[in-house]
Order: sequence, then structure tokens, then C-alpha cells
Amino acid sequence: MPSQMDDVDFMNRALELAGRGQGSTSPNPMVGAVVVKAGRIVGEGYHEAVGRAHAEVNAIETAGRRAAGATLYVTLEPCNHTGRTPPCTEAILAAGIRRLVVAMADPNPHVRGGGIDILRKQGVEVTTGVQENRARRLNEAYFKYITTGLPHVVVKCAATLDGWIATHSGDSKWVSGQRSREYVHRLRHAMDAILVGIETVETDDPQLTVRLEDVEGIHPRRIILDTHLRIAGNARVLQLRDGVDTVVVTGSSVSEDRRKKIAGTGVRVLAAPVKNDRIDLNALMPLLGRMQITSLLIEGGGAVIASALHDRVVDKIMFFYAPKILGGDDGVPICRGAGPDAMKDCVPVSELKVHRFGEDVMIEGYVDRSAPRIE
Amino acid sequence: MPSQMDDVDFMNRALELAGRGQGSTSPNPMVGAVVVKAGRIVGEGYHEAVGRAHAEVNAIETAGRRAAGATLYVTLEPCNHTGRTPPCTEAILAAGIRRLVVAMADPNPHVRGGGIDILRKQGVEVTTGVQENRARRLNEAYFKYITTGLPHVVVKCAATLDGWIATHSGDSKWVSGQRSREYVHRLRHAMDAILVGIETVETDDPQLTVRLEDVEGIHPRRIILDTHLRIAGNARVLQLRDGVDTVVVTGSSVSEDRRKKIAGTGVRVLAAPVKNDRIDLNALMPLLGRMQITSLLIEGGGAVIASALHDRVVDKIMFFYAPKILGGDDGVPICRGAGPDAMKDCVPVSELKVHRFGEDVMIEGYVDRSAPRIE
Repeated sequence: MPSQMDDVDFMNRALELAGRGQGSTSPNPMVGAVVVKAGRIVGEGYHEAVGRAHAEVNAIETAGRRAAGATLYVTLEPCNHTGRTPPCTEAILAAGIRRLVVAMADPNPHVRGGGIDILRKQGVEVTTGVQENRARRLNEAYFKYITTGLPHVVVKCAATLDGWIATHSGDSKWVSGQRSREYVHRLRHAMDAILVGIETVETDDPQLTVRLEDVEGIHPRRIILDTHLRIAGNARVLQLRDGVDTVVVTGSSVSEDRRKKIAGTGVRVLAAPVKNDRIDLNALMPLLGRMQITSLLIEGGGAVIASALHDRVVDKIMFFYAPKILGGDDGVPICRGAGPDAMKDCVPVSELKVHRFGEDVMIEGYVDRSAPRIE
Repeated sequence: MPSQMDDVDFMNRALELAGRGQGSTSPNPMVGAVVVKAGRIVGEGYHEAVGRAHAEVNAIETAGRRAAGATLYVTLEPCNHTGRTPPCTEAILAAGIRRLVVAMADPNPHVRGGGIDILRKQGVEVTTGVQENRARRLNEAYFKYITTGLPHVVVKCAATLDGWIATHSGDSKWVSGQRSREYVHRLRHAMDAILVGIETVETDDPQLTVRLEDVEGIHPRRIILDTHLRIAGNARVLQLRDGVDTVVVTGSSVSEDRRKKIAGTGVRVLAAPVKNDRIDLNALMPLLGRMQITSLLIEGGGAVIASALHDRVVDKIMFFYAPKILGGDDGVPICRGAGPDAMKDCVPVSELKVHRFGEDVMIEGYVDRSAPRIE
């Protein structure tokens, strides 16, 4: 720990605490808080799970009487409304917090401005914008959802260095290494839902569950795109009895018999608009939003990933590259279908970041959703 | 600069100096040297170009009389033979160097052991192996060449994140950004020769020259693989009159007329063994080695890259990824031809390193040349 910690250091600590709530707070954001008195941390807390106490309240509680006259660092503007828990502004005033440092205002329309304004009026000194970018990225899914009603969409794939996710025979075991695969389970755990196309169900017969040793499995919901409802009754994803929804999204021209048969396995069959014989993803996203899916991980196959990219429903990509080269052109590609004529009409990705997982390289970046689409 | 520099620090400085010779020393290695007295650098030098003084001599000269009783750091064992210049061991003894620190012994069969042994016998204290790995990587091309007679082979390509080097229409301008393209020119400058297949000549009509503002153009030699000698007489690469060899490598079943016509443009036509209707790269490499090509950059196309990888003549890959996604499966792939059935039979790449060039990501790695080949 540096000898003299400043606002940025304390806020970084609060952000670190906030991250511990990953996978448990949705549809709430992750929030962390730190109480500091005379340059020392006297209380810490984070929002552990939806329905439980907010970060500020937890931090103030661990500080006890030392909160009086102290500075409170919070990664997100404290709420000023009664939701599942009482307003945090009340707890802050009751504890006698003298100064409040906030990373960013809450973009939630129910909260905006409220918490900071009322605390200022009550004489609390307020500083905002400390580590705002980090705080914004931490809850990027929540912020997108709360302001648009649409889930934050991540596309994930694992490929060879020359961009193939499987050999011509379909063998993909294993493209990426163990540490990448573990991270993907952690990623799934952090998301509200996983989406795959029927081709992936037919090829890989995946379970789409979270398998982690150190985390109790809160599985994300499972979304299968299946325009013609051709999913096999014995697909593994239809056999899971883990209390988590599986939703099969289908077009409207599906026989009632077939629909009943699949619904009878205990999954939900959701009809959605179709465009060019594929589920219209721009129409589907608001439907998923209404199901309180704030974050969605698209894992394949290539036709679904290509549609999602071209329809600009994707916010973020995570491409894992394994230390191997297929060395041919007959493998299974990351995306299926027609690409653009001109290189300049590719889907632009920005803010590329590189991560290492063992011998694998992961490139993460943001898709500019406002960029013009090539139809 | 740290207050107390040690052997590693001084050797790092010598390695830094050595790197300045990049592109000018071949077929000699890059070498740097530093003279240190009482913990301070009193002389520095590097091997600037083939035929000029060795690094040790340059460093000792700048140190002048202060070299007496000093420590000399050299990135490679000093030579003990008369080549284009007198033996460095003599200069070291004449200057009164008391201690010699060497990163690594010279694997050159003409030098091995000689320099260090004679200096030790003459009472110079010798330390070896300081920053040996860095020194080995710095001259990896030279070391491979000197021990095997074969060039060090690098494969370079630039692709979208989903692994396409051009769109279906062949548009590849520009996949990668300006900083990557600049680096590629620097890379070309550092290599003895560039190799492309006839497909690349036909598609891109490249000049294969070095275009850099700050470096006087020593162009690498140009090698074109053209089994049936079908190159067009007006290809740009045949029009260059820059004093640098262009070699068109062809099979033996080519008409004498055709051969004379192409040779008449001022390029060299080299006959090489053919395997599966392609130039046999394992047979070609020793031929290039005999032409004193110590390093070779393979720039494409996909069939040449695939052959080079499958034939295991490649030492190193440098794949540039641009921040864009083609989003389809109809582009031009990095490699052409049949890939393996099983993912485990991909070409393994090790020691992956990631570099950034503006918004691009470059992944560099070594191909295990001893790994089993799938025929």
C-alpha cells in the first residue's frame, strides 16, 4: 500500500470490492464503497447480491462509529429512493459522513442527480468523476440496460491464429487452453444469459452451464435461436433441470404440435420476428430486455455471430486465439455468410485490449453500434 | 539510470547498442559493447555494418586510455580470427581490459571457444551467460544460419480479427494501420530477402521494396516462387533497377525460351526441385543459404504460407490483426489448401508475444520446427 493514499487509490479499492459482486447483483449494478478517516480505511463493503444491502450501507456498518466525520468513497452515486432496500442517502446522513467521493452519477432514470443533490443540500461535501471510466466499464452491461432496455451483448469465440474455430471435420477440442476455458466459465457466470444458434446445439450439443470449482453455480439463462423449431427432443440443453430458464426462440410459422412438444420438455418457446429466414436480432433484444436479461453472451455458431455483428446488436467482442495454426482454408470460420466487398466496410472494433490466458491471447474490443451497416 | 548499475544493466545497454546495426550487419551478427570503469560507462560501440570495425574495437576506441583496467561488456564472444578485420582478442589485450563479460559464446564454428579461452589464458577475468536469452534472440537469424546453413524464416501476414487478409473481391487496402505497415518496412529492411508466390505477384503486383523515411534503402533481395515461370513480363518486381537481386525460382520443366525471356529482364532464374507441383521449400532453403541469405521474410500468398508451415521451414510468425471483423466466410484466408482433420494436428506455435502498433495487435511466436508434420 502506498504511504500516502489519495482519492484515486481509495476509489480503486472501492472498484475492486465492487467487482466481488460479479454474477450476483443483476439486475442491479456492482457497487463498492470504502469509509476513510484520517487517511485510513475504517470500513469497506460491496453490494453482494440483488435484494441484499447496498455497498454504502455495508461499508458504513463495518466502520461503525468511526463513520462520523469520515469520507465515503462509492463507485456509483448513492440511491435516494426506496427499492428493495431503504435509500442510501439516509444511511449516509445518519452516519455523519462529512465528504462523499463518487466515481460517477447513476444513469438510472429513477436515480439521476437525486442522491448527490440531496447530500449536497444537507451539507455533505461531494466530489464526482474519480475513476469514472473504470466505474463505467465495470457496470457497462447495467448502464446499457438501464438506459436502453436492451441487454449488453458480448460475442465470444476461440480460434486458431489463422482464424478457424474447428477443423473441416468439426473437431474443436481443444482450440483454446484450460485457462481460457476457465475464464469463459467465469464470463458465463457474470452474464444473465447465453445465446447460441440451433447449428451449435446440433454440432456440439452443449450444456451451456457454468462449471467452476470455486463459485456456486448460478447458471445464466440459455437462449437458443431455432427459427424452424427443429431442435432434437434429446438435446442436452433440454434435459437440464437446474431451475434456470431455457428459452427456445422460434419464428411464427411453426406448427402448434411441435411448439407444444418442445414446451413440454420444460423450456419456454418464444416466438420472435424473422428477417431473411433468421430470427431478427434487433427485434429479439428488446424481448430479452423485458425478461430482465441485462447481459447476453453469444457463443456461436458462425451464422449467429455474423448476424449479430451485421445487425449491430453486439457491444463487445472477446476473441481467444490459441497458439496454433490450422494452415489451410477448410476449417470452420468464426463467421458464416457473405462479407463486404471492400475492406473499409468491415465491422469496426475499437478500444482493443489484449489479455493472456496461459499460452492463449485474448483480444477484447468494442463494436461501434452506431457505425453504418452494410446490408 | 539506476544509482547502482550491475552486469545485467550494462549488458542491456550493450544489447541496445547492438540493435542499432539491424539491417546492415548481415551476414555478420549484430554486436554491441560497453566499457565500464569504476561503475561508469567510459566507452560504447556496436558493429555498424559488414566490413566495418567490430563492436569491441569501437567501444575500446571511444574509451581511449580509460579502457586500461576496465570491464568490457560484449553481447557475443569476441572473435579470435582474422576475417574482414583483425581479431578482437588482440585489441582487448592491447587496451588492458581487466574483466570481460559476455552474453553468449559464438556458435560460429570458426570462433567457438576461441576468443574466451585465449583471453582467460592471458589473465582476463571472464564472465559468460549474462542476458544470454536476449542476446540469442537478437541474432536468431545469424545463429540459425551459421549453425545450419539455412536462412531464418519469418512468415508475416495482416488479417482481420476473424482471420481474413482480403475481402472476396481481393480488396486488402488497408487491413492493417499505418504503424503496422511502417513496421513491416522496418522488418523488410532487417531481412536479407523477401519471398512471395506468383499468386501474390499476379494479385497485388508488389514492388517488395523498403519504403522508410529515416533509413537509407538497403532493399532485401526478392524471391518469387513461380513453378511454371508464368510471371508476366511487365510485373513491377521485374522492372526494378535498384542493384538488388530478384530471383525467380522455377521448376525444371520450363521451356528454355521462357527462361531466357525472363532472365533477359535482368533477374536471376533459379531452378529448384518440385514436390506436389510446388517448389519444394525444404530443398530451396539450402540454395538460398548458399546465396548468403541468412534471413527470409515470407509475405504470401496463402498457398506459399501454408506450404512453408506444413514443410516446417518457418521459424517465426508475425501475424498482424486489425481492429475490424469481416463478418463472413468469403474472404481471402491466411493459408490456402487442406488443413488437418484434428485440432491437435495444427502447427504448434510457442513463446507467443503480443505487440501493439497503433490500433493493431501483432502476435509473434516460434514454430516448433521439430514438431511432427502431418503429410
